[in-house]
Amino acid sequence: MPLTPRSSSGHLSPGPFAGRTLAGLARDLRDGRATATGLAERALDAAAALDPALNAFVTVDAAGALAAARRADAELAAGVDRGPLHGLPVAVKDLIDVAGLPATMGSRHFAGHVPDADAVCVTRLRAAGAVIVGKTTTHEFAYGPTGDRSANGPSRNPRDTGRMSGGSSGGSAAAVAAGVVPLAIGTDTGGSVRIPAALCGVAGFKPAYGAIPADGVFPLSRSLDHVGVLAGGAADCLLAYHCLTSGAVPGGPGPAPARDTTGTAGEAGSPGGPGGEAGGPGGEAGGPVRVAWLDPGCLFDGDRRVVDTVRALLGEVAEVRLPEGFGEEVRETYLAVQSCETAEVHAERLARAPELFDPEVLERLRAAAELPGWRYVRALRARERLAGAVAALFGGHDVIALPTVPIVAPPLDRREIEVAGRPVAVRPALLALTSPWNVFGLPALTVPAGTVAGLPVGLQLVCRPGAEPLLFSTAARVTPA
Amino acid sequence: MPLTPRSSSGHLSPGPFAGRTLAGLARDLRDGRATATGLAERALDAAAALDPALNAFVTVDAAGALAAARRADAELAAGVDRGPLHGLPVAVKDLIDVAGLPATMGSRHFAGHVPDADAVCVTRLRAAGAVIVGKTTTHEFAYGPTGDRSANGPSRNPRDTGRMSGGSSGGSAAAVAAGVVPLAIGTDTGGSVRIPAALCGVAGFKPAYGAIPADGVFPLSRSLDHVGVLAGGAADCLLAYHCLTSGAVPGGPGPAPARDTTGTAGEAGSPGGPGGEAGGPGGEAGGPVRVAWLDPGCLFDGDRRVVDTVRALLGEVAEVRLPEGFGEEVRETYLAVQSCETAEVHAERLARAPELFDPEVLERLRAAAELPGWRYVRALRARERLAGAVAALFGGHDVIALPTVPIVAPPLDRREIEVAGRPVAVRPALLALTSPWNVFGLPALTVPAGTVAGLPVGLQLVCRPGAEPLLFSTAARVTPA
Repeated sequence: MPLTPRSSSGHLSPGPFAGRTLAGLARDLRDGRATATGLAERALDAAAALDPALNAFVTVDAAGALAAARRADAELAAGVDRGPLHGLPVAVKDLIDVAGLPATMGSRHFAGHVPDADAVCVTRLRAAGAVIVGKTTTHEFAYGPTGDRSANGPSRNPRDTGRMSGGSSGGSAAAVAAGVVPLAIGTDTGGSVRIPAALCGVAGFKPAYGAIPADGVFPLSRSLDHVGVLAGGAADCLLAYHCLTSGAVPGGPGPAPARDTTGTAGEAGSPGGPGGEAGGPGGEAGGPVRVAWLDPGCLFDGDRRVVDTVRALLGEVAEVRLPEGFGEEVRETYLAVQSCETAEVHAERLARAPELFDPEVLERLRAAAELPGWRYVRALRARERLAGAVAALFGGHDVIALPTVPIVAPPLDRREIEVAGRPVAVRPALLALTSPWNVFGLPALTVPAGTVAGLPVGLQLVCRPGAEPLLFSTAARVTPA
Repeated sequence: MPLTPRSSSGHLSPGPFAGRTLAGLARDLRDGRATATGLAERALDAAAALDPALNAFVTVDAAGALAAARRADAELAAGVDRGPLHGLPVAVKDLIDVAGLPATMGSRHFAGHVPDADAVCVTRLRAAGAVIVGKTTTHEFAYGPTGDRSANGPSRNPRDTGRMSGGSSGGSAAAVAAGVVPLAIGTDTGGSVRIPAALCGVAGFKPAYGAIPADGVFPLSRSLDHVGVLAGGAADCLLAYHCLTSGAVPGGPGPAPARDTTGTAGEAGSPGGPGGEAGGPGGEAGGPVRVAWLDPGCLFDGDRRVVDTVRALLGEVAEVRLPEGFGEEVRETYLAVQSCETAEVHAERLARAPELFDPEVLERLRAAAELPGWRYVRALRARERLAGAVAALFGGHDVIALPTVPIVAPPLDRREIEVAGRPVAVRPALLALTSPWNVFGLPALTVPAGTVAGLPVGLQLVCRPGAEPLLFSTAARVTPA
């Protein structure tokens, strides 16, 4: 396979899985055009070639991946088919336990830590036949949306390696965006799947709270933590989501979405995705999906070019507004809940070995540890009250659409950027449009929505739990095939 | 009726309802030996005579009480019988809204505040035909178990008016103990019904969390707040509890418990209480109630004479122990939950008008407002974990028995007393044996269990939600008839 070195502009050549879909790869495996072992080798080679520029991986498990791939090949040869992820390479965020592999949580506190059991989501990946190729870089303890504070060093954006991947699942996004793997697992507490997916130009899905169990995942903020998936497109996210939840996947390795551009016969399927339930528009009453645009100005005053680019994708749709004051209240609620829950997780580490934290993470943790308890109590009450406003938002609409991140990927390490002559604080900007949905545990999907100044932007689609198929049918309808 | 002045020893002569039961009074009303109007007049007269010594009432509503009593009489005459509370005088803690009467919460912050709607429990009292005679003194905002910090001044113990009633429902306990009313409503966040009931020598019942709705009750700590009842004996508590929950009462105004000592024919009934479900021992499998003694030493090192007096009531029963460390952990959990939730309730008052709080209450609130949020998060987690240990405690036992308070009523305003030559901090002592059960929302009953040095002590019985009848059958069996 060709090596894909870093170009002089910081733009990387695409890896072997760029533009491929899970369904297309699954078809290749079953048609004899590929083997799991071959796919694993391609992923491992791409990691070796690209990771020096990306820093997407903390650990690459060549031996484990090849062994799993050989088992997958043997099973398929013996007629044992574990479904659409069978034999496909996948990367797992380093915050998630994989038995026998280091789990550093991106922190020196966990240097050398090797868990002896798989997280539940990893158990499910293995049961689905997936081949785990390695652990991906996370912002330290997932406590940051920039992806550039980690004991492993910053993960970098494949579109421009001088820019941040976003985080905290930065390595997972970078590995998928660079085509090193077709699928990666991440976690999302305030946007940690969706932010890096959007900044790197891939799809990311944060399911409803608890839909994928978080057992074996190191906590950031327990009432906000979600396990999610990152892949090239929405349909692949849906397919992986199904494998990580019920284990049963509608349609199996069937026709692939049209956006797979590598052009095998089997990959020119219907745009509706892998399952009939997401096979086209269909609102809750069976009618057309009621999509409404939420102008993000009430949540954050970001880059208007990003907003306009995303808005243009949707065409004519209804517009909704958040109630007066909602934006500020939900931001405060998120911050109080997240700060207090995170400080609880790290209280002993903070007391005993503060020097092991990255200085920026330490400073934020110390501030979080000082937030008074009554603020948390009040936030829990606000969360309940605001949930009523959110329910009203979904009274007349099935899917709320807005940008995923209101800016493009900033340069690495920057904490303030200039947008149209104004200073914009990077961390609040990154979190502003994703974190509100974590507060309410709502399913939220980001899909690539074009570029601004050559850098990817994401369209975010949000729904109520139970309406997930509508997210995916909407994504299939509005995003470029 | 005879006035009952304060004796020189600080011991008050008993009021008209001392030693009477609700069932006996109900029988009198229906047999024509009493009228609701007459009972209300006796309660009002007793309040006028005794309250200068007790300070049990913030507001006495003579006009409202007499009007309600006349309606009750007219209804009974017309054949409308609202059940066992019909026409009986009741007092309501000043933390609970009664439409048209001041609700001061014991605080200068609410001087002149008159709510225009009844709390749910008051609505239910009225629907049951009860006659509300007034509002009883509460420790300021119910934030204290001593009952001696209130804008209304301290409530005093009828057994010795130089001693504290306990709190925070001190006025309710004093009014019942002095025989001014046969029934009072209180609230219990860490023992605020049971502590003053025990110190004043009456019965008090804190039902399971949420069993009596707290709507219209000023919050102290929302996840710990319970509405409860105080009366002369356990059977009366059960009867009132039924009226405040289902509205339906087993047995109606039937035979009264034997401990009614005023001797009318109708009042020499079975000791089993008003309902068949509490009519005798009967464990969950229909066998004998499995009562187990919990030595309180693991929770607090109090007055051994109190422990021995209470223990002696039970005779031969099993003994249970709490797991190592449980006592300290549950105390910390209670304090963190209560402090943060209380500070949330008062954050604005604390910022804008701290000078309106009693100085001791202010000092405690300020400390509560500084407790970091991660401690609250941790407490919620501990609460879940400890609930497992508590469930195990009830695995082999239906009812856990222990003293209600490990000391007798201290002198007013004292914060440290001497017990057997050791200094004992009053507030922790008062709360130590009651507050653990609030953490888990368990039903808990206190019944008079004799005296130590002439001062009342209480036996506390605790069960799982659903096993309440066993508390009352146990109380009927073990306490003096």
